[in-house]
Amino acid sequence: MTNSAIPSGVDSLQNDRYLRMLRGQSVDRTPLWVMRQAGRYLPEYRATRAVAGDFMSLCRNAELACEVTLQPLARYDLDAAILFSDILTIPDAMGLGLSFNAGEGPVFSKPLQSEADIDNLPILDPTAELQYVMNAVSTIRKALNGRVPLIGFSGSPWTLATYMVEGGSSKQFAKVKKLAYQSPVAMQKLMDNLSENVFVYLKAQVEAGAQALMIFDTWGGVLTPAQYQKISLDAMEKIVSRLKRDSVTANIPVTLFSKGVGEKQLVQLADLGNEAIGVDWTHALSDVRAATGDKVVLQGNLDPCVLYAQPEAIRQSVKAVLKSYGEHKATGGHIFNLGHGIHPDIPPEKVSVLVEAVKEFSSQYVC
Amino acid sequence: MTNSAIPSGVDSLQNDRYLRMLRGQSVDRTPLWVMRQAGRYLPEYRATRAVAGDFMSLCRNAELACEVTLQPLARYDLDAAILFSDILTIPDAMGLGLSFNAGEGPVFSKPLQSEADIDNLPILDPTAELQYVMNAVSTIRKALNGRVPLIGFSGSPWTLATYMVEGGSSKQFAKVKKLAYQSPVAMQKLMDNLSENVFVYLKAQVEAGAQALMIFDTWGGVLTPAQYQKISLDAMEKIVSRLKRDSVTANIPVTLFSKGVGEKQLVQLADLGNEAIGVDWTHALSDVRAATGDKVVLQGNLDPCVLYAQPEAIRQSVKAVLKSYGEHKATGGHIFNLGHGIHPDIPPEKVSVLVEAVKEFSSQYVC
Repeated sequence: MTNSAIPSGVDSLQNDRYLRMLRGQSVDRTPLWVMRQAGRYLPEYRATRAVAGDFMSLCRNAELACEVTLQPLARYDLDAAILFSDILTIPDAMGLGLSFNAGEGPVFSKPLQSEADIDNLPILDPTAELQYVMNAVSTIRKALNGRVPLIGFSGSPWTLATYMVEGGSSKQFAKVKKLAYQSPVAMQKLMDNLSENVFVYLKAQVEAGAQALMIFDTWGGVLTPAQYQKISLDAMEKIVSRLKRDSVTANIPVTLFSKGVGEKQLVQLADLGNEAIGVDWTHALSDVRAATGDKVVLQGNLDPCVLYAQPEAIRQSVKAVLKSYGEHKATGGHIFNLGHGIHPDIPPEKVSVLVEAVKEFSSQYVC
Repeated sequence: MTNSAIPSGVDSLQNDRYLRMLRGQSVDRTPLWVMRQAGRYLPEYRATRAVAGDFMSLCRNAELACEVTLQPLARYDLDAAILFSDILTIPDAMGLGLSFNAGEGPVFSKPLQSEADIDNLPILDPTAELQYVMNAVSTIRKALNGRVPLIGFSGSPWTLATYMVEGGSSKQFAKVKKLAYQSPVAMQKLMDNLSENVFVYLKAQVEAGAQALMIFDTWGGVLTPAQYQKISLDAMEKIVSRLKRDSVTANIPVTLFSKGVGEKQLVQLADLGNEAIGVDWTHALSDVRAATGDKVVLQGNLDPCVLYAQPEAIRQSVKAVLKSYGEHKATGGHIFNLGHGIHPDIPPEKVSVLVEAVKEFSSQYVC
């Protein structure tokens, strides 16, 4: 399904601060959104979720997914919306049987167990097997009505692989790393399949109305420097390269977020043709900026746990993050965010403190 | 209990390669030990554990703790033994009620829940409340009979605090980080208490016969750079400083291991007066060496998952780690180890491949 009703970029945006930053254009203040801004910390989210049933039922219902996507925008002056969905929709659509056990995170009932399982993985038609995602994207895009841009996203191939092989969340990632060390050829096949699937999935999201893209490489940080480069980074490079060569997606800004990686890996991640990288809270933005040399926009990186603190401490921490990035130049730039998704027990009024602090303190830094 | 029978250093060591490296003396090859070398991957360990009952019963039985400590030395040509114990003995002795649930890791039945709980934490007399540990140390030291040196250890104050506040293992560390951001004064009190307790605990281990010390800062990597410095690093600095000023412990080499931290944090960790730092598998030793400038010995850092691979791949990976560190100089140096504890499902014969590869390939690098 292509979205002929609202071709990308035709509706004029009322708030284009986020996209302007990613395009290297001037802004009046630092753009801001919050990872998992549509989520359990909001009582209205919990109410909608209760109507939908389980998490994936909420993702599959375009109207309700749209409703929760817009909820944080009704409360806070945020500069982007992000599709309400999960990073694991691709393996779920492949038939691995995704479910969410309370408190345990995602579980696949049919994890990959052999090289034959990998050989048999399909290349999905995202407008068929993942049509519910595209319906959600176009529904949200219409409902936003140009208020802020809509970010589409996917898990990275390596991150998808960890769940597909481990069968769920993991502490040691022993099974998927065993595959990487014991059967590098099979691992490469898996990465190649997932790179192709993530590309067509992201392209379909753009066709459905997504105006920016983000790839979540949640588990890039568990790899050695050599394996990160060979497995996770290489796959993301292939995806970005295809997005940038495809006329549908060439002008859509891409943010890559490898959580838990070192500064050297962030430098590599900033060099794939993408517009931005996400930075987790374990780095100083000043260090990452110096290392990446204003090549890309940095997104981040307030420790989500700062939102447990009193308002004045939150304000000071926001100031510290803005100051750590420092004054913007013609290239590079900063999009304010947390360094990880917001925790479900954060009081919603703390996010107001965060938003107001970014608005109050950031205009002196931008250009 | 002071160990008058075997004062530290009196028995001559048959294999002092590990201590020589830490003292900056010449060696014939790179010393080697394996984190969790006494552990579930060994069938003889599982047999002894079955006799002991649960994990803490094994730790509390000096004869059986000694037996499992020596088991890997019977199989492999390793250059150090490490006390068989747990990093959480201190909070357990404080009355927090440690137990190990199958597959769930450590659980405290009485976690810290208020500032009053922190104020009431005692300074332990390790020769009383932790006498079982000192008994194990002296029993192992006698049984080793000078074969290789014995490493004593503790969890770092920050790492102990994470378990004490969370009540067990954690993914997000929300409770303990909430304490750090909401109540920095209470957090500092907790760190001060634990710094004192870890110091007296490590000193008692030396009095009982430990010939080297290691502090495991397993969760240092979840902090922001500023919080790492203020909380975890500061506490470890106080401990090392006291160890180095105390005549009993002044000459005992200390290794600090903050898992999951960035290179900048490793540079700080190498500057506390300690002889060595542990390096996890997410760094290239060449980078860490360049950053720390041969100031300390680097211990590590083969990805434990490499041991899932075929023997030739293991050999090549060992070579790569040795080569990454490179040629030794008069200062600094390298102690081979994994970058994390060995996984319980590694076939024991894979460790033989590792040990033989270190012996075969490392002599060209040492001086």
